[in-house]
Amino acid sequence: MTMGRAFSVGFILLLTALPALADECLNCHRLKTPAAVRQWEESAHAKARVGCADCHGSDHARLDKGEMVVDQKVCGRCHAKALEEHAKSRHGMGLHSGWGCTRNLPGRDQNECRHCHEEGSAKPLTPVQCARFLKQSSEMGDLGCNRCHSVESSCASCHTNHGTSLAIVRDPNVCAACHMGPDHPQWEMWQTSRHGTLFTSAGPALGPTCQRCHMAGGSHNVSAGITMNSGGIPYPAEQERKGREEMVKICTDCHASAFARKELAQGDGIRTQSLTILKEAEQLIQDLADRNMLDPMPEKRPPHPLSGPRLVLDSQMLYEDTSHIERLFFKMKKYDYARTVKGAYHQNAAYTHWYGNAELKMDLIDIKAEANRLRERGNPVAAPAGKTVKPAAAAEEQLRVLKKKAERGELSQTEYEQEKGKVLRELKETAP
Amino acid sequence: MTMGRAFSVGFILLLTALPALADECLNCHRLKTPAAVRQWEESAHAKARVGCADCHGSDHARLDKGEMVVDQKVCGRCHAKALEEHAKSRHGMGLHSGWGCTRNLPGRDQNECRHCHEEGSAKPLTPVQCARFLKQSSEMGDLGCNRCHSVESSCASCHTNHGTSLAIVRDPNVCAACHMGPDHPQWEMWQTSRHGTLFTSAGPALGPTCQRCHMAGGSHNVSAGITMNSGGIPYPAEQERKGREEMVKICTDCHASAFARKELAQGDGIRTQSLTILKEAEQLIQDLADRNMLDPMPEKRPPHPLSGPRLVLDSQMLYEDTSHIERLFFKMKKYDYARTVKGAYHQNAAYTHWYGNAELKMDLIDIKAEANRLRERGNPVAAPAGKTVKPAAAAEEQLRVLKKKAERGELSQTEYEQEKGKVLRELKETAP
Amino acid sequence: MTMGRAFSVGFILLLTALPALADECLNCHRLKTPAAVRQWEESAHAKARVGCADCHGSDHARLDKGEMVVDQKVCGRCHAKALEEHAKSRHGMGLHSGWGCTRNLPGRDQNECRHCHEEGSAKPLTPVQCARFLKQSSEMGDLGCNRCHSVESSCASCHTNHGTSLAIVRDPNVCAACHMGPDHPQWEMWQTSRHGTLFTSAGPALGPTCQRCHMAGGSHNVSAGITMNSGGIPYPAEQERKGREEMVKICTDCHASAFARKELAQGDGIRTQSLTILKEAEQLIQDLADRNMLDPMPEKRPPHPLSGPRLVLDSQMLYEDTSHIERLFFKMKKYDYARTVKGAYHQNAAYTHWYGNAELKMDLIDIKAEANRLRERGNPVAAPAGKTVKPAAAAEEQLRVLKKKAERGELSQTEYEQEKGKVLRELKETAP
Repeated sequence: MTMGRAFSVGFILLLTALPALADECLNCHRLKTPAAVRQWEESAHAKARVGCADCHGSDHARLDKGEMVVDQKVCGRCHAKALEEHAKSRHGMGLHSGWGCTRNLPGRDQNECRHCHEEGSAKPLTPVQCARFLKQSSEMGDLGCNRCHSVESSCASCHTNHGTSLAIVRDPNVCAACHMGPDHPQWEMWQTSRHGTLFTSAGPALGPTCQRCHMAGGSHNVSAGITMNSGGIPYPAEQERKGREEMVKICTDCHASAFARKELAQGDGIRTQSLTILKEAEQLIQDLADRNMLDPMPEKRPPHPLSGPRLVLDSQMLYEDTSHIERLFFKMKKYDYARTVKGAYHQNAAYTHWYGNAELKMDLIDIKAEANRLRERGNPVAAPAGKTVKPAAAAEEQLRVLKKKAERGELSQTEYEQEKGKVLRELKETAP
Repeated sequence: MTMGRAFSVGFILLLTALPALADECLNCHRLKTPAAVRQWEESAHAKARVGCADCHGSDHARLDKGEMVVDQKVCGRCHAKALEEHAKSRHGMGLHSGWGCTRNLPGRDQNECRHCHEEGSAKPLTPVQCARFLKQSSEMGDLGCNRCHSVESSCASCHTNHGTSLAIVRDPNVCAACHMGPDHPQWEMWQTSRHGTLFTSAGPALGPTCQRCHMAGGSHNVSAGITMNSGGIPYPAEQERKGREEMVKICTDCHASAFARKELAQGDGIRTQSLTILKEAEQLIQDLADRNMLDPMPEKRPPHPLSGPRLVLDSQMLYEDTSHIERLFFKMKKYDYARTVKGAYHQNAAYTHWYGNAELKMDLIDIKAEANRLRERGNPVAAPAGKTVKPAAAAEEQLRVLKKKAERGELSQTEYEQEKGKVLRELKETAP
Repeated sequence: MTMGRAFSVGFILLLTALPALADECLNCHRLKTPAAVRQWEESAHAKARVGCADCHGSDHARLDKGEMVVDQKVCGRCHAKALEEHAKSRHGMGLHSGWGCTRNLPGRDQNECRHCHEEGSAKPLTPVQCARFLKQSSEMGDLGCNRCHSVESSCASCHTNHGTSLAIVRDPNVCAACHMGPDHPQWEMWQTSRHGTLFTSAGPALGPTCQRCHMAGGSHNVSAGITMNSGGIPYPAEQERKGREEMVKICTDCHASAFARKELAQGDGIRTQSLTILKEAEQLIQDLADRNMLDPMPEKRPPHPLSGPRLVLDSQMLYEDTSHIERLFFKMKKYDYARTVKGAYHQNAAYTHWYGNAELKMDLIDIKAEANRLRERGNPVAAPAGKTVKPAAAAEEQLRVLKKKAERGELSQTEYEQEKGKVLRELKETAP
């Protein structure tokens, strides 16, 4: 109902402003791209006499060169409110997989600089994205990354190119093409949650869709009701509180408010617990790196596209050209954590527990086992397994590790001095 | 047809016994939980004038405290036959994930003691369940475990709270919310079996649903036709024979009896073969534990909630706080085995072979490789790789392992004596 | 429309040639297999008066023994054009999982010899298939392998036995029963591609099915438009070009030809890149085998059913009775590669990137880590980690590896001589 409001206002303006220019195009395109024409003919655009040139322009030479992209600015000329809401949501910002400085990549649009930089400045506005994209071939970047990460600028990501039927964008399947797979299987977890199974057996009145909770009232701000950033870190208190209230209001269309609050709070609890498990694994790997025990160490492999020859375990971490133990952590962080937490907020027991929590804990076991193997193998300086080492060399290694921990803030200055003192005393006592 | 019989009898009794008390509740709840009210209004309950208070009671103070749970006893007041059938099935017994002695867990209901104990006795009636539950946080236990394992006491697990439409519970999707995921993907394997694909393309007349085979004639005994316990061990002969006859009778609605028997017998064969593969892996791990070669050994990790610091490889085994090789075995036992065997009985080639059999065999390879690594690493008593050991210490270790095998019944007393004799003779011969 | 043409011609011939013999069978089978009879009664066969005996014959004694199989030859008596198209496609040839010399397996049909041999010859015509099948129990071979690999000879694989409704075989779900799972999830990747989500939300006019692209015009040649063999090796240039033109023609029903060509060319690029990643892993394993470092080596395990005690990394490789590193490569080759490449050609970002490319690269990391472990462990001849070796023995080992590489064609004769010279010079210099 309200979903159509923003559009219809646009249509009326459009009918006044633009003549129907379609016939010229259609004569040829009925033969060349018949299905595209059929789709347009059955669309609300055709009924409102919005023709080919209204969106594509009429410069066929530039069209052929692929220069006349129908992006969100074109759609926004009529659908201003939708575009404004879209721009406020995660869909509308921060998903460009080309982030990270891409100015030297072939075919990059220099306008993309504004995603990271103020005009004329080389300093990034926000942490740059995305190291993983920078490692891919242009084919994989296009088909594997930007097929989804184009949602910022392309309304057709959801609305398709010429169909634009509301039946398509109100169906939860429209979300499936991106919101699925190992890293964020929201579609799969919705489909087998009680919400999804009720949709399948009893229809949208009883079984809520993605749209009903995340685009309530037809809003294009899909991030309403979200209380944390994409790494699971809660928003500042006031923003978090506001997000929670927005979501609880949506839940109470069906559920008692107290029930909704409890469910969502359980999700919060599971998120915190899952982050703790992640942290344990991360510190194990960090410690191995401090001791030069990763195989291979970052200096001995192709440099990270953004950070160079350094260990990267944050959101920029790679799944290629790393050590085995880091790749195990990649699975934990990107797959297991996401399934556990998103599964909890989407009320799917199997994703929360089996695909999520159980995998997190099994991967922690694997990481500990690999850490033990690496420690046994030793490193050129510290003691190899079962051998005696000269105490001075061992102490030197311990001091180096302590210093790194202090630099990362894992030890306070006082703790660092205490630990350092202990090592030096032990060295003195064992000296011949 | 027969599905509705048990209910209608109940409704008639109800209409005589209870006045309509709903109006008082509805005035508020139309505002507070509008969808719940809408669902009830369209339900068979509303048509039969079964109102809010009939199920929820009318003590609003206790309702607010969550004390007035609508469990199977409330439903059973009208739906006696369904409850009786339910109680006979696996749905109705033995699925409480809180089993294992939970009396000290916060918020546990002391009435749950009856699941494991005779009144007043501390001795368990049956093997206690479930160690994995006892390791979880209350949030994970609630959302990840009991979301499904509440089916024993909550009819709403399948029927939903206020909808109760038969279209919901006769749709195979109602089963999907629990019977999916890595440990028992019955829904996924049905969906892509010929049974499931025919349901999707040609409807329930041609494509049988979960309900058609496992709730034949509308019975709530979902375990009719089952021939083994949940660990794959066949029931006693007569019970097994009876189960098979029940299932074959259902199959012959579409298939020739000889075909059905052959298909199910192939499932039996695959089950036996799969258990053999599991056994090989289990013995490898048991043997490593005998030789103190697990990393870490059970004594060096948080104790098992039921068995303490001992190796647990049976149905109570954990996926956390174990060694790497045990966690590989957990995947084999809980995931691969289940997919192979349930895939076979549900006629899904890819689950039987690729998701099941191939994974079982690849995991066996991984377990053997890890066992080799652990053996090479050695233990403090036995011979480390490439070193000579004092024969007496080695013999002592061998005798210890033999004794453990005899205690577990893997060696008969005679075999034990023979093996022991051999070790002692060898020791004598190598003595200086 | 055109789909029915081949059939209707057949039906007319049939009606002239065969009397209706069904009544005699139906009297009993209405009681014995009621659903089968119901399905036939609603089928086009019943309407065209094609009765039981027309397909099954009337020799009930042989029927009971299972000797009267309704295979593609029976169907082909009426549906000649469909059979001819089927025979040209991959469905119609080369999928017998029993290939590999099966003459001594229980119950094998000696007529199957013609799949591999010219009449009277023991020399195979084509590389034999399939070693993995030969390792399975008869139950697993039947249910896990031949449930799908019977498509060559059984039209019922897709058309079902008695239903034969066009609604079934024109629904993409009919393909799901085989084209799913870890090794070729075409159904899953179609379902969550934009093609599939549009089918679900807007129907077949907008969302193309498997059939629309792979059985265009109702043809039973499902391999039209394919440009490579099943191992990803492009067909000879002219055949490749022809296949691409066939596919682009299908795409242009909806898409501009230039767009379709670019999409498919991206798939080609991703295929080539993925094969390179596979090759890197394969060479690592081959090199370990040359150095006797696999655990266990092929000679120390059950022999390969076709190649005996030799390393097999080609399409005949096994997932059982191999070393851990080979089993990792099996996953890469059979699962990751297929998902990446088929995902790309089916326009599914998550299969191409996450389920495919990311897994390929993570598995390569795991393979490198295991290779390092195996190299450190050393072998009885070459230098164990951290030990000095007699130069003569080390040189001998290096020469052996070089010879193997030359035999496999990885070194030219000139390169081999150069490398050999280098080793011999080094040996001379280090000699005491």
